[in-house]
Parts: sequence; structure tokens; C-alpha cells
Amino acid sequence: MKRVMLVVAYDGTDYHGWQFQPGVPTIEGELNKALRELLGEEISVIGASRTDSGVHAFCNVAVFDTDTRIPAEKLSYALNQRLPEDIKIQRSMEVAGNFHPRHCNSKKTYEYRILNCEFPLPTKRRYSHFTYVHLDVERMQKAADYLVGEHDFKSFCAVGAVTETTVRTIYTLSVERQDREIVIRVCGNGFLYNMVRIIAGTLMEVGRGNYAPEKVKDILVSEDRAAAGPTAPACGLTLVAYEWPDGAEFNYSF
Amino acid sequence: MKRVMLVVAYDGTDYHGWQFQPGVPTIEGELNKALRELLGEEISVIGASRTDSGVHAFCNVAVFDTDTRIPAEKLSYALNQRLPEDIKIQRSMEVAGNFHPRHCNSKKTYEYRILNCEFPLPTKRRYSHFTYVHLDVERMQKAADYLVGEHDFKSFCAVGAVTETTVRTIYTLSVERQDREIVIRVCGNGFLYNMVRIIAGTLMEVGRGNYAPEKVKDILVSEDRAAAGPTAPACGLTLVAYEWPDGAEFNYSF
Repeated sequence: MKRVMLVVAYDGTDYHGWQFQPGVPTIEGELNKALRELLGEEISVIGASRTDSGVHAFCNVAVFDTDTRIPAEKLSYALNQRLPEDIKIQRSMEVAGNFHPRHCNSKKTYEYRILNCEFPLPTKRRYSHFTYVHLDVERMQKAADYLVGEHDFKSFCAVGAVTETTVRTIYTLSVERQDREIVIRVCGNGFLYNMVRIIAGTLMEVGRGNYAPEKVKDILVSEDRAAAGPTAPACGLTLVAYEWPDGAEFNYSF
Repeated sequence: MKRVMLVVAYDGTDYHGWQFQPGVPTIEGELNKALRELLGEEISVIGASRTDSGVHAFCNVAVFDTDTRIPAEKLSYALNQRLPEDIKIQRSMEVAGNFHPRHCNSKKTYEYRILNCEFPLPTKRRYSHFTYVHLDVERMQKAADYLVGEHDFKSFCAVGAVTETTVRTIYTLSVERQDREIVIRVCGNGFLYNMVRIIAGTLMEVGRGNYAPEKVKDILVSEDRAAAGPTAPACGLTLVAYEWPDGAEFNYSF
């Protein structure tokens, strides 16, 4: 028996998110199916980030145990033969038997992309949220700076989400214009349900002038979801980096 | 009666190319349909570049004549309401009554993208051609340099294509690595049928070591399609810029 870690990239457009649900396509469901066909074992992978419907990833992480004699690093090639074109393994490797992708001191980085120009660009539509309302990137960055550090992010968590604590740490949060796109890049030790999309929706309100940048301080303090901006659409969100402080060999970033 | 120019962006993945064909989806067909519905006139647009099945564009150009009283610059908004999400007008404007998008001294720029890493990345699959064989960008650039200038590009034209002359001018041709992608960017006064894809396929042969960079000189001189490399797949190709030397106001580039 060995424990195998997969680094998984996907275009989430046509999936109902990571987590398995009967009767609808999910990333976890496709991985379990490909593993069952390849290894002849009933396998349920454990995912690091249970991304929502429509969200993309360059490097989500999945772990499973298997009795196969196929070397762990060869599984990527064999699985990619069986996976659909919108889900591809980027790396497979053996890890310690007690490694759990959610119980470890990892850093995750998400990017939220906004196409901000007069008309939508078809080749960006799957991976960016479009708005023609001009957004002021400097104001957005000023607001973003208030969110960096350890805070109670209850105002930035979907109502009804179950979690032990709503305290999280954001290490970096940048807002940058790249040609016609605005890229919000956030690195933290973990994110609450919808947290990055609520941050993006709130920063967009600041960018269009509806909120003063300083309002973000008050939103944090209020610990009230209703005080923050709307949840930005899923298509703009991509999980782009995963890092383990104690295992440089696992690091994977774009 | 006025003549209107449209700048059209599209994701060509799901279309049988620009040119109208009965019974299959084409860019021209979708534009004519949206114009007919909007204006109540039978309109057949004239396109600047009749891109192939699966090829994308940020800024192809289409021209038509109309009696409408809607101001030309408002047509973009009204058409985008009726067009599918993978075709969007970027600009509409009135032009001189004798303006013809193919009979003018324009410069076009195409990009050919190659995803060159160990495993395919799902979010790149629609707009890049994937190969895991390592390509040497410096060799490719050396070969590309032989193609710059005015040449007879008969070796780089699909067999059977009808054209008055196979002489064209390439102004610039660069090969650059951008993270995991290799971007071939070529600017010229016009391109023969499949010319950019045959250039890309030939440069890939150089990049993987099958051809010496100098072989490209011999391929040009041979005036024989069979001497050049294969036609690279359509998905990697995007029309990215259109420039008119005498009309800076028309220029459109990404």
C-alpha cells in the first residue's frame, strides 16, 4: 500500500465543482472513475481545495492510497490517457503515508481575472469575468492592503458555511492591470467558502467608486457578510499555486 | 447608403472558419444573420481575412453597405446583443464608400502559440497547440530570420490554393518563450493559404532538431510545398493585429 499525490489542472467551465455529486460531472468524480478503470480498485481521492462549480485550477492536489505496482510517477501518463481534455494530471508522486492535503501547513494562491474593456473578448470568456465599467486599479490596491494579515474574515464568507474558525491569514494581495485584464492575486494559508470571490466582488465595488477604499476596514470589523460586496462570478477564479513550507519538492506554481 | 466596417473578435473553436457555407456554423454566416435580424436588410459582409476552421481572431475586419439610420458606431452594441458569446464586435465605424478590406495596403499580424511542457494544460487547450517534445527557441528564431523580407513563399502555401502570385513580404517574425508557451509572431502584407501554419510547422521541425535552421533557405528556394514541414494545427493560430499605413484611425492591435 502506498499513498500517491496528484497535481491536477482543470478547466472548470463544464463541471459542478470539485466535490463528487451523483449524476453530474465533477472533477473528483472523473478522477475516481479514471483511477478505478486504470487500477481496478475502488478509489476516493481526498482533495486539497474543494473548488466551486466553474472555478479552474492549474494545480489542485489530490491524494489516495493504492496497492498498484505501477510506479507513482508513471500514473500521470496513464491517467491522462483516460481523463477528458479539460482535466489533466501535471504530476504524480509517492508521499508519506500520513500526508493529508488539508491537514498541513500549506500556502495557496488564487487569481481572479476581470476583463475590463468596452466589449467582451471571446477568447477570454471562459477564464475572466467581463465588465465594461471602468475599474480604478489604484483604489482597488489601496482597499486590498487592509485585508493583508491575520483577520477574522467572517464578512467574506458565504452565509451558512460550516467552519471551526473564520480567522485566516492573507500573506499577499495584489491588484494589477495586464493589458485589458485586471488580475487580483491572493496568497493565504487557507480560504473560507467563497472568500476570494467575495473579496473580488468587494474590490470591484471599490474600483468603480461605490465604496471608499477605507470601507474595507469597516467591512472586516462588522463580521457581517451583508456588509461586503457581491460574490463575483466563478469563471474568473483559478487556483494557481500550492506551496508547502516544509516540502519544497511539492511546490507547484504558475 | 453608407459603408460600415466592423472589427470582429472570435473564438474559432466551434466554427467552420470565416467563409459562409450552407448548413454549418461560420463566422460570416453568424454576422450576416445578426445583421439581417437587426437591420431587416439582406447583407453579405466582405471579410478581410478568410480564416480557416478553428482559427481565432482578436480583430478580423468585415465591411458592408446599409441604408440604416442607426449610427455606425452604435451598431457594435446592437450586434453584440444578437451574436453568440464566441463572436463579439470590438468596434463599428463608417468608412469611405470605396473602402475594400482586401484591396488596401494593410499589415496583418498573426500569433501561433505552442504549449511546450510535459503535460497539456486544460485552460490552454483551445488557443495553443500542445507538444511535449522540447523545442529550442533560439534555433527556431535563427530559421525564422531567413523568412523575413520579400520572397516567393510557394513552398509555404497549401497545394491547390488559387492566387495571382505567391510573392509576399514578411516584415517581422519572432519566436519567444513566454512561461510554458512558445509564441511565433509574424507580421506581413498578406499571407497565402495555410502560410502561417506551414511556417509554424516548419519552425517546430527546426526546434526539435529534425531540420537545421539553414534548411529554411533551401525550402524557400525549392518553391515546393513538399520541402517544408507539416501544417501546424489550427487551434494555435490567432489573428492579433490589423494596421493600415494610411489610416492610423483604423489600427487595431493586441
